[in-house]
Amino acid sequence: MFRNSHTLVKFYWKHQLNNHFRSSSSIFTRCGSSFHQDRNSENKRYSVYSALSLSFVGALSYYLYKDEIKNYLIENHQVQALRKEAVQEEISCGIRRKDLPTYSSEEVSQHDNPNNGIWVSYKEGVYNITDFVTKHPGGQNKIMMAAGGSIDPFWMVFANHNKSEILELLESMRIGNLRSEDVYKKTADTFDPYALEPVRSKILKVNGKQPFCAEPPPPLLVKNFKTPKDVFYVRNHLPVPIIDIENYELELAVEDDTIKTLTLEDIKKYPKYTVTSAIMCGGNRRSEMADAKPLRGLSWSVGAIGNASWSGARLCDVLNGLGVKEEDYNHVQFEGMDLDPSGIPYGASIPISKAFDPRADVLLAYEMNEEEISLDHGYPIRVIVPGVVGARNVKWCNKIIFSKDESPSQFQQNDYKGFSPSIDWDNVDFKTAPAIQELPVTSAICIPQRGERITVDKNGTIPVKGYAWSGSGKKIIRVDVTVDQGETWHIAKLVAQDPDAKEGRHYAWTLWSLDLPVDKTKGSVEIWVKAVDSAYNTQPESFKNIWNLRGFLCNAYHRVKVDLV
Amino acid sequence: MFRNSHTLVKFYWKHQLNNHFRSSSSIFTRCGSSFHQDRNSENKRYSVYSALSLSFVGALSYYLYKDEIKNYLIENHQVQALRKEAVQEEISCGIRRKDLPTYSSEEVSQHDNPNNGIWVSYKEGVYNITDFVTKHPGGQNKIMMAAGGSIDPFWMVFANHNKSEILELLESMRIGNLRSEDVYKKTADTFDPYALEPVRSKILKVNGKQPFCAEPPPPLLVKNFKTPKDVFYVRNHLPVPIIDIENYELELAVEDDTIKTLTLEDIKKYPKYTVTSAIMCGGNRRSEMADAKPLRGLSWSVGAIGNASWSGARLCDVLNGLGVKEEDYNHVQFEGMDLDPSGIPYGASIPISKAFDPRADVLLAYEMNEEEISLDHGYPIRVIVPGVVGARNVKWCNKIIFSKDESPSQFQQNDYKGFSPSIDWDNVDFKTAPAIQELPVTSAICIPQRGERITVDKNGTIPVKGYAWSGSGKKIIRVDVTVDQGETWHIAKLVAQDPDAKEGRHYAWTLWSLDLPVDKTKGSVEIWVKAVDSAYNTQPESFKNIWNLRGFLCNAYHRVKVDLV
Repeated sequence: MFRNSHTLVKFYWKHQLNNHFRSSSSIFTRCGSSFHQDRNSENKRYSVYSALSLSFVGALSYYLYKDEIKNYLIENHQVQALRKEAVQEEISCGIRRKDLPTYSSEEVSQHDNPNNGIWVSYKEGVYNITDFVTKHPGGQNKIMMAAGGSIDPFWMVFANHNKSEILELLESMRIGNLRSEDVYKKTADTFDPYALEPVRSKILKVNGKQPFCAEPPPPLLVKNFKTPKDVFYVRNHLPVPIIDIENYELELAVEDDTIKTLTLEDIKKYPKYTVTSAIMCGGNRRSEMADAKPLRGLSWSVGAIGNASWSGARLCDVLNGLGVKEEDYNHVQFEGMDLDPSGIPYGASIPISKAFDPRADVLLAYEMNEEEISLDHGYPIRVIVPGVVGARNVKWCNKIIFSKDESPSQFQQNDYKGFSPSIDWDNVDFKTAPAIQELPVTSAICIPQRGERITVDKNGTIPVKGYAWSGSGKKIIRVDVTVDQGETWHIAKLVAQDPDAKEGRHYAWTLWSLDLPVDKTKGSVEIWVKAVDSAYNTQPESFKNIWNLRGFLCNAYHRVKVDLV
Repeated sequence: MFRNSHTLVKFYWKHQLNNHFRSSSSIFTRCGSSFHQDRNSENKRYSVYSALSLSFVGALSYYLYKDEIKNYLIENHQVQALRKEAVQEEISCGIRRKDLPTYSSEEVSQHDNPNNGIWVSYKEGVYNITDFVTKHPGGQNKIMMAAGGSIDPFWMVFANHNKSEILELLESMRIGNLRSEDVYKKTADTFDPYALEPVRSKILKVNGKQPFCAEPPPPLLVKNFKTPKDVFYVRNHLPVPIIDIENYELELAVEDDTIKTLTLEDIKKYPKYTVTSAIMCGGNRRSEMADAKPLRGLSWSVGAIGNASWSGARLCDVLNGLGVKEEDYNHVQFEGMDLDPSGIPYGASIPISKAFDPRADVLLAYEMNEEEISLDHGYPIRVIVPGVVGARNVKWCNKIIFSKDESPSQFQQNDYKGFSPSIDWDNVDFKTAPAIQELPVTSAICIPQRGERITVDKNGTIPVKGYAWSGSGKKIIRVDVTVDQGETWHIAKLVAQDPDAKEGRHYAWTLWSLDLPVDKTKGSVEIWVKAVDSAYNTQPESFKNIWNLRGFLCNAYHRVKVDLV
């Protein structure tokens, strides 16, 4: 697990922080958050050193630009607002309770294994999470890092825990109070890992603040065949890393051994390929599945998808001449420069056959829609794995590993997987399901939106627009729409598809449009859409039978009820 | 259309007729049926010369072995029985009617175009089929071959027309009687193209007699991971050709120009590859879709699928060194040695990228389950296109054409395609849908069968078994079974998968099994099954919303109602 321990104290140099600094032409350098693991036998707590553990270079840059950072934080209303909301949500959990006993951090630390019970502290509270550990949606390994210690520093990074339902769940496991002098304190110098995220377009609806997860409004999504970067959904899993582009290197390794390093310029020397590919989050449309039955995960509407042209070096070209043989390994792992509190990078892997196959079009992309990839979308290098779930299209990639094994990352092992509807958090075993790679066929109505009042035109129709997409390079061949529960299906016009896609490599989405006949006298209609791909796979009708505990693969018919006037 | 006119008078030599002749060690030679097109300006009828038009060699062989043929026909009860039934079905149509006028064949022949109206004769009847031509399920081109003439000889080959509903439909277009002296007469020497079909295993349930289409009983299907040849479904489109193996050649052509020919021995010189691949008919499970709403096509149950290992040369190896460039063409067409009455061979095509891709595992197979491929399954060469509908896995292949265009065959152009449920025979335009290639995910329950009485065992379960498969090389990752309409899903055990399949190339089927908990007190249960493949595509719930006029792609949940005792 600590193969990447060399990254534990790692400093980044900023290349382009955000538009704010760009426009004021500030030269800005920032050090990333860094966490140090201190696991001595006496006190098995994780200590988090942030500013405190800054190395010389990092510290120097921090202090040189401290005022700029402070000013930035004050000026950046968006970040401030987010933090304020987060704080408000926290108030119901971790407050001292008079009805419970008090424990020292030493006592808590003795409960770091199943035999003694697993305890953690959060603010002033002490919790027995023994029974919950195996059910932790983020994986057992991750939650065990906090065993016997404070979860506060972890939740600074995995700030998506700051939700009422999670705080409530934690509080239900409360067993006591933490001795006042042992309560984890954010020091004045603690560097908030999310303080310097890029400024985002106000267009996006924010589903998760830290890490940042946001999607555009559906009608905007279908305005362009290629989604502009500011409209393109963002699904980060960790704080956005700060990129020291001057010293950027992509490391290529076979298991634990580095075999080559490439600078950005080196990567740009390979033939430049362009592929238009949609990228979709595995949880896109989760809100609809959650309507069928509650589940855990960010509440995405239909916007966790975007379509862009990506340009860069083909991975198969980079692999060529390395001396690595496809048959000797099973997987190609990618690591991002975004780190979790223990210094482990975001990671994912794909089958090695896809990496070696020139027809799979896997890219080390440095351009998105003919421009340098923006920070939120993976600058300087994002791995593009066309037809495959967003989670494997690794942003900020700085390491590629050929391995017998899949990525050890929890996002590969214990997160992006699908299960039978009968599997719940009490009986789930993540090992029984394969990591999601290629995605099934889906479609969505973006215009109109649920609950809208639509004027029926003189021909008795209403305009309906949306997208359709299938993984694995399958082309969308038909989109069917009904307003009478399938008694009559209307065939939509496919208004935009990639004209340059090669046979079997239709990675871009399809935009569709239809003047849908409706009966105005009904007052309202429920519009259903389903798409069919070139393997004639089509969507399941309803969410009930594809429901899964993490809310992935939400590709049932999209149903939108609207009022007619 | 008549690119293949050189095949019009083509004679076959038998290699191995059937087990009957094999066991009696007969040396047997047979000529195939041959049809000659006689389209002079005065009489645009198609004349069918069978024994009459035999060339010297064919005639010689026929007369040399006439008695053997006769004896064979007498002895072969199966063939006799089939013919008898076919004759019985014909009685309701084409009989002289006193209420209608009489026309000469000369008068009929003047009605061979839309301007004059399109007439045909059948036995003693004359029919105006003008309005039906565009709705002909077998394609407009095919039916127009009989325009102005007799359809009798065509129906000898396309004997699947001998069905009450088709005869009834024809009779509804009746306008008159044909002059007695012009009525088409099968001469004593007419060679029945179906007279010498291989003798088939009695195991198979016959869905179509001529051409032969048959499937095994479901419980037998899941007895073996590799389906034995006598249990493997047969879906022929034309009479089985007689193979002159001594003179067999596989012709490779670029558009109209032959660039190479290979003997069977030449093909066997390429490296031998083995791929285990299921082959499924595009109409498998059609009977269930027809239950939802009537449609046209053979009534397949769940048995129009089989799984076998196929060995032969990889097509990509054969293409290597030919000088044909993938980027110069779009499709690779295959022709079989089975001919229609006008001498046009069965044909199909696949995208050229699949032919050139070593990872697509397209084979020119000469072995099935480690034995020489039997006559019914495509001896001597069957093209195996793993993951792709059976219709493109061309049997008896003797020609491969690199082309800008798809196969002109009606089976490519106007047959194996999927449509929206709203498309019917009045508004269908076959050009609007792509030819079916890769197939969607499916599954079926083979044990128990519908209506069976099943004894619930002491644990309160019943044994359930079946298969699951997905095209495109997608692996089956899960099979879910329910007896309460999806309230509870039970996960089946995947008992057999191809252990040698490479990542993304899982072409074999998966056999699954489950001891399914049931409530005996309910008296009966309806079992539903759905499979999930490695792209997490799953099956649609019901047939209503995937219904299509030809009854292809019948992959909704399989539902089997049984009684419990």
